[in-house]
Amino acid sequence: MKSWIRFRLAHGRIGFGVLENHRVTEYEGDMFGDAVPSANVLSVDDVTLLNPCVPTKVVALWNNFRALSEKLGKVAPSHPLFLIKPSTSVIGPGEPIQRPQTYAGKIAYEGELAIVIGKRCRNVPVDEANDYIFGYTCINDVTAAELLNEDPNFAQWCRSKGFDTFSCIGPAIQRDFDWRNAHVVTRLDNVERQNYSLSDMIFSPAEQVSRISHDMTLLPGDVIAIGTSIGIGSIKDGSTVEVSIEGIGVLSNTLSSGA
Amino acid sequence: MKSWIRFRLAHGRIGFGVLENHRVTEYEGDMFGDAVPSANVLSVDDVTLLNPCVPTKVVALWNNFRALSEKLGKVAPSHPLFLIKPSTSVIGPGEPIQRPQTYAGKIAYEGELAIVIGKRCRNVPVDEANDYIFGYTCINDVTAAELLNEDPNFAQWCRSKGFDTFSCIGPAIQRDFDWRNAHVVTRLDNVERQNYSLSDMIFSPAEQVSRISHDMTLLPGDVIAIGTSIGIGSIKDGSTVEVSIEGIGVLSNTLSSGA
Repeated sequence: MKSWIRFRLAHGRIGFGVLENHRVTEYEGDMFGDAVPSANVLSVDDVTLLNPCVPTKVVALWNNFRALSEKLGKVAPSHPLFLIKPSTSVIGPGEPIQRPQTYAGKIAYEGELAIVIGKRCRNVPVDEANDYIFGYTCINDVTAAELLNEDPNFAQWCRSKGFDTFSCIGPAIQRDFDWRNAHVVTRLDNVERQNYSLSDMIFSPAEQVSRISHDMTLLPGDVIAIGTSIGIGSIKDGSTVEVSIEGIGVLSNTLSSGA
Repeated sequence: MKSWIRFRLAHGRIGFGVLENHRVTEYEGDMFGDAVPSANVLSVDDVTLLNPCVPTKVVALWNNFRALSEKLGKVAPSHPLFLIKPSTSVIGPGEPIQRPQTYAGKIAYEGELAIVIGKRCRNVPVDEANDYIFGYTCINDVTAAELLNEDPNFAQWCRSKGFDTFSCIGPAIQRDFDWRNAHVVTRLDNVERQNYSLSDMIFSPAEQVSRISHDMTLLPGDVIAIGTSIGIGSIKDGSTVEVSIEGIGVLSNTLSSGA
């Protein structure tokens, strides 16, 4: 399996490259542009994995899986329903999810597939949309669940999902990924809580990229969190959430009670 | 009046500096850091004004003025209610607002004061929050109004307000601005449609910056659109919206039927 990662070396320098069989080939240039392999080959044990891309925004979908939509008694949407999570919400594999200083309530995990955009993208037809997808990674779309409906007049999607560390992405970006035959598995402290087929999604990745590119310009490295299905639940302080998708990898993050 | 602008010269180079009495003193370095005046002094007639900052996100408040809140019959919120508009939605003074390719419905203007963040800002107490405000500018927070409630289960705030060109900001950033004694005036094709006192706001700028900095890290250049009051309405294709705030300036943008 060959996938793209970003990493930090022991002395602090940040790089990116291709991971294959525990060996990292560092690249130079732009991951989404003129990337060329360098002579630098490392063991994956000598680097710390970072979020594999640096999005300017995370577009997070709601109600994009039939099983969850039916369970909630909602009709399937006619257009992707989304909120925007800020760049400051993004962390990588192994980094702690931090409980907000002012929030003592329930924090929920949502294991999801994430699309990584590879090229600037505006008003793209659906049959060209796959050309704008660089690859796929895992995301844990974290939510401060009790804030969502705190105000009776305004659902606080951006606030409840926008906190620093609430978009965990990684561990790597897989370019050749067949989502139709893959499952998302989420484990909370090693107990399986979600296991759903990506084939159940309402808007396919190409449909999402096309539709959302008619709503806003998507930039290289931007992430679409394609929505979750049944089995979401809350994370206790100190608990670890693993989102795994065969063909991509395992994304693991622990909720810190923080400072 | 002395204020900060970004501009483009005739040959395409982009700069920033201080505008005073039609004279622009170009600065070097970082507007929010080590900015130092250069020897380059220009006439404002020789530059094209751009959006005065380049936000990574626009945090846009809903229900932050008592008059509008009462008119809508809503209770005042206990925390700022906001959505996030992407960086790609931002344009400057004089740039056309573009009708989305796939949307033929009503497009609404909202004249507002905007806060420009000057320093990275997280968990800031209210009595220190003014130190993180670089200054103030005008914003027209544009909305594709008919999309907002298109889906019965999910208010599409980010979609209806997140289109490219839907955050018009400028013309300049005023550092010394007394919001307590200022009005926001919005004119549609030279007819006054909004004229409201900023003293009617529910959460003050310092309260907004403090509260929102507990929800996410704010970065230099980020913008908070502090919410609008009564008098919002729709813009016909070809119509011009002017948002003016005494002590800051006049922001003018025309709705183009686009391509």
